[in-house]
This record gives sequence, structure tokens and C-alpha cells, in this order.
Amino acid sequence: MITVKEIAKMCNVSSSTVSNILNGKSNMSEETKRKVLEAVEKTGYRPNFFAQGMRRQNNKCICIIAEELLQFSTPPIVEAIMGVCESRGYRSILINMSMYEKWKNTGVSLGEEKLLQANTSPALLEAQAMRADGVIYVAAHGHVLDVIPSDYGIPVVFAYGPAKNNDFKSVLIDDYGGSKLLTKYLIDSGHERIGVITGKKDNLHTVERLKGYKKALKDSGIKYDDEIVLFADWEREAGKECAKKLIAKGVTTIWCMNDLMAAGAYDAVKEEGLDVGKDISVFGFDDRDIAEYMFPKLSTCKLPLKEIGEMSAEYMIKEIEDEDFRNSPAKSTKVPCKIILRDSIA
Amino acid sequence: MITVKEIAKMCNVSSSTVSNILNGKSNMSEETKRKVLEAVEKTGYRPNFFAQGMRRQNNKCICIIAEELLQFSTPPIVEAIMGVCESRGYRSILINMSMYEKWKNTGVSLGEEKLLQANTSPALLEAQAMRADGVIYVAAHGHVLDVIPSDYGIPVVFAYGPAKNNDFKSVLIDDYGGSKLLTKYLIDSGHERIGVITGKKDNLHTVERLKGYKKALKDSGIKYDDEIVLFADWEREAGKECAKKLIAKGVTTIWCMNDLMAAGAYDAVKEEGLDVGKDISVFGFDDRDIAEYMFPKLSTCKLPLKEIGEMSAEYMIKEIEDEDFRNSPAKSTKVPCKIILRDSIA
Repeated sequence: MITVKEIAKMCNVSSSTVSNILNGKSNMSEETKRKVLEAVEKTGYRPNFFAQGMRRQNNKCICIIAEELLQFSTPPIVEAIMGVCESRGYRSILINMSMYEKWKNTGVSLGEEKLLQANTSPALLEAQAMRADGVIYVAAHGHVLDVIPSDYGIPVVFAYGPAKNNDFKSVLIDDYGGSKLLTKYLIDSGHERIGVITGKKDNLHTVERLKGYKKALKDSGIKYDDEIVLFADWEREAGKECAKKLIAKGVTTIWCMNDLMAAGAYDAVKEEGLDVGKDISVFGFDDRDIAEYMFPKLSTCKLPLKEIGEMSAEYMIKEIEDEDFRNSPAKSTKVPCKIILRDSIA
Repeated sequence: MITVKEIAKMCNVSSSTVSNILNGKSNMSEETKRKVLEAVEKTGYRPNFFAQGMRRQNNKCICIIAEELLQFSTPPIVEAIMGVCESRGYRSILINMSMYEKWKNTGVSLGEEKLLQANTSPALLEAQAMRADGVIYVAAHGHVLDVIPSDYGIPVVFAYGPAKNNDFKSVLIDDYGGSKLLTKYLIDSGHERIGVITGKKDNLHTVERLKGYKKALKDSGIKYDDEIVLFADWEREAGKECAKKLIAKGVTTIWCMNDLMAAGAYDAVKEEGLDVGKDISVFGFDDRDIAEYMFPKLSTCKLPLKEIGEMSAEYMIKEIEDEDFRNSPAKSTKVPCKIILRDSIA
């Protein structure tokens, strides 16, 4: 059976160059890649599973526990975590709890946290059973998380949601900073009556984003007017209903706390026979895929999902490898959002 | 420490009712759910990890290996697999190979298959190490898969891509049937000059969808005209360029083999000063999230992702539990697509 060493010899490169090329690392010349891949093709070489297993010295495995894979924010966070793990020599696996379906079936808001704990328990057990070195918990939205027992015994880092009592390190969106930034941008562009359509009232993202909005107004000496701040529920339909009311109140911009509601605002503006980006401005939040496909293209605030994933993985690896870091006080790190300008602002 | 049994006694229900409620099963009355969750809240009950571990009799674990989590089709397939696993008492975990980044870095198409094999090997080893009962391989797009060695020893089912030599069971989209269906729909709606913008020429989806288109034309006695079938690359920009050419050729509908290219067709139609759904029709394929946020909303052909996930999980469990099924000949099962009518067809 042909080995990596023989391929390397045939191509006049080192064994590690062959391995790197087969593992998709990019820092080799096209010429070298082509030579190696042609040799692999010609010889019919296939990596030897068991030899790879034997070479492994320790477990080096990180378990990711996600609340909901279908939440748009989850795959980019998970992919970024996995990218860092791979480049740092850690394997990573994902357990998905599919909480949306379960929460929907409960219909009792009291039960939300208990349901989550009941579903996290087997996942945590699973992580122990596979001797994971650490667990990264990926929340589906910003809610305070009380899901890890204090005697769990494996390092845990939270991504996208804060830990209760701040007893674990977490990496979060800077909702406050993002909304302050975009509100300031809108003010600097000449808008003073900036209508707001919020997410659910008690949701952490809503609360923080509203604070940022108020702060930006205050910094510019504009009075906060609660008549043009309408509480909604993150859904397109509510965005449309609220936008109609805001248009009637004579706002010049409608800022929606997510892109789905911004689509609803577009619906309302079109129904009134007006043009988004000409007669009235609309601004979103999230920068989901849809933002670039709306007409006109939506200006919005991009969530730092990749950065949250990467940073939580870096924290995790530090927790595992660096005792000082592991013993340092738990804290939340907030990652800035970025304004994405497209065509929806007059 | 409070137990499930005590909670059950307090609420005058069975222990399994308490467990079911905590696991998010939905067939209990709201009244019962509320009673149990209130008792859980009041007593501070938390599931006992170790007791749960002890109760487990066998491994009952299915390992999902995905080529690319960021491909839009992957999360719904994975979520559906996990839903079936959970309801059938199997745990499931995901290993993601993040192939897009790796393929991009290769830059040598010859290497695509070798890279995939090199990345699948450690994932397969991982599945063995965790004593998985079976592996479901989720492809990122339809390509023929030669990634599992014949002596692997654990049952494997493929989702979204066919196995080479048909040596494993696979569950696929019915590309041929979907495009035949939508072409017939367009013909029945009065369209005869149906322009086509395809995906990459040698891609399996492209090949099958083109066959379906030709068959529907033939069934209706319409001559195939290769002047209005333009080969593209799945990207919005190419969709726009090709759509311009098709408009110049006087087609009445533009069918794009994915929704992204349909967005490009919208761009072209708008640039010509025409209205989609009035002056010219556009039809997509996939039914991605963006379809409903385009203006006007895009009519398209919905991929049966949930069904592919569910069916591949059912096959997997049958492979594990039913010897006759396991020994039955490998075959591909094709799942039908569904037409979704919105506002882009005149």
C-alpha cells in the first residue's frame, strides 16, 4: 500500500507538505499542489484511518452544544468555532438540541428554562462520555443561561448568550454599541425623526439596542420620543403593521431591530405607494442573507457571528491549555457590529 | 434531592409524563404541562446526569458527517435527521468538514475528490471511536461520492448525493421530476418560449434538471431550442448577464436553476425598465429564504430538504435494526420537489 512518504518522495517534497495539501491548507504553490494531487490520483493513495488514529496522543476534542441549528445565526458561529478548532489541532463535534420545536410545543413560558435544562443535561453527559476537553454552548438568541451545573467539571464557554451570575466566560454581540453606531449614522445623515420597531419587549437584544438608540439621540441633543418607538415581535407582519403607524407619524427613517421586520416595513412603504430609499428610509439589523435580495438592497447592521465563533473557540482553547486563564474571573466579551450600507437610506 | 418520581406524585401523574414534558413532547394537555413545570420550578428539581447515563442500555448513536454546514441545504437536512433520531431514541452528533473553504484553497479541480476523501477519513475514524451505530453522510451538493472504504464496517446512508457504484443507499432530490413539473406548469400557463439559465454544465443537478425540461417540452410538442438555454454557474451575476441575453431573444419566462440566479434575472429585468411578473416571468429553484423577500416574491421549486433528512434517518435506523433491509440491494431514493407559487409569473 502506497504511503504519504512515498508520495512525498515521488514529488520531491516533504511528507508534511503532502499532508497539508490533503488537508486543504493553502500556503503551497499551485505547482506543488498539482504535482502532489496528480501523484495521489495516479497511485490511488488513500489515507490510512488506523495509522491516523494511532498517531493521536490525547483527546483534543471540543464539544459544541447548540440550542437550535435552524436559527440563522447558529451555522456561521459553529462553522467559525470548528475552523479555529481545526487550525489549532482540536477535533470538534456538534450536538444540536432543536429547542425551537420543543419550546413551541410547550406553550408555557414558565417552562422555557426548565425545558432547556432538561435538554442540556443529556448533551452535557454526552460531552463527558466522549471525554471532550471543553464545551462551547451556542445560544439561539440572547437570553441569560442557567444550564450548566456548578460541578460539571469540564470548561465551558458561552457564545451568543450570557451565563447567569457571570459564572462562565461568554462572547456576545455588542447590541448597545451597534445600535448607537447606526443611530449616530442616521443622525449624521440628516435624520432626526428615527422611528423604531423593536423585538420582543423583554428580550435582551431589544433592551440593549434601545439603550444604544437613546444614548445616540442624547449625544446629539435629540429628545427621545416614545411615540415613535413601537414594540413588536421580530416578525415581518408586525414590522408591516408598525411601519404603517410610523409613516403616519411622519418619521423620515424606520429602524427595525431585525431584517425580517425591515422586510415588513418595505411592504408597508410599498402599499402606501412610496419608495424605500427615496421617500423614506429603512434600516435593518442582523445582515441576514435576505438583506441583499430585498429591493432596494437593505442597509443594516451586521452581526459579528464569525468573530463570536472564533473568539469563543480561542477562549475555549485557552481555558483548556492555560491554567491562569482558566482561573481568571469569568466575564462577558462583547464583539462590535458593523454597519453595511446599501440602498435603503435616503 | 428531589426525583422525577416525587414530582410525578406531587402532580398526580406518571413519571413518564414528567419525563416527556421535560423532553418537550407535545401530547400532554396545557393544564398538565403547567402543573408539572410549576412543581419543577417550586422544588428546584434538576435532572440527574449520572442516573440518566446509568439507565442507558446501549450506544444508540448516529453520527452525521456533513461536507459543509454553511451550504443552505445542510442545516434543514441535519435538523430533520436529528428530529427522527430523537423520536426514535437515538442520540445524534454532527461532524462538519467545512469543505468549501478547503476546496476554494485547492484551486485544482482534480484535487476535489482526494481532498474530500482525506477529510472524510478522520471523521469516519471519529464515528468509530464514539462507537456510532451508523453514519449519515450529508453532501453539500449533488456529486458522486466515493468517500467510504468498502471495509468500513458501520452502516452508511448518503443524503443529498449519490454513492459511487451505488454501493450504499442514498436519498436524493428528484431534480428531473421537479424541473419537468415546473416546465409543464409554465407551459400550461401559456408560456412556450421558456428561457433557461443553468448551473455549472457538468453538475449533476444541472444535467438532471435539463433532462426534465426537455422531457416536458417534448410531452407538449414544443421544439427544444438550444439558443435559449444558457449555461451559467449558480451565481447572481451570471444570472443577470444571461437574463439580458434571454430578454433580447424574446423569451416570455426565464427559468433559473437556482434562486440566486433568479435574483440576477430580476436585476436584469429591472435594468431594462420592465416588471417581473407583468412584462416577463421569472421562476427559480430551491426555495431559499430569499425567495419570499425578493420583490415581487419569487415562484420557485422547493427542495424537499426536511423529507430527505427524515428519510435518510429512517433508512439509517432500518439499516441498524433490520437485517433484511441492511442486506437488501443499495439504491437511490429520489424525493419529489414541490412548486411554490408566488408573484413572479405573468
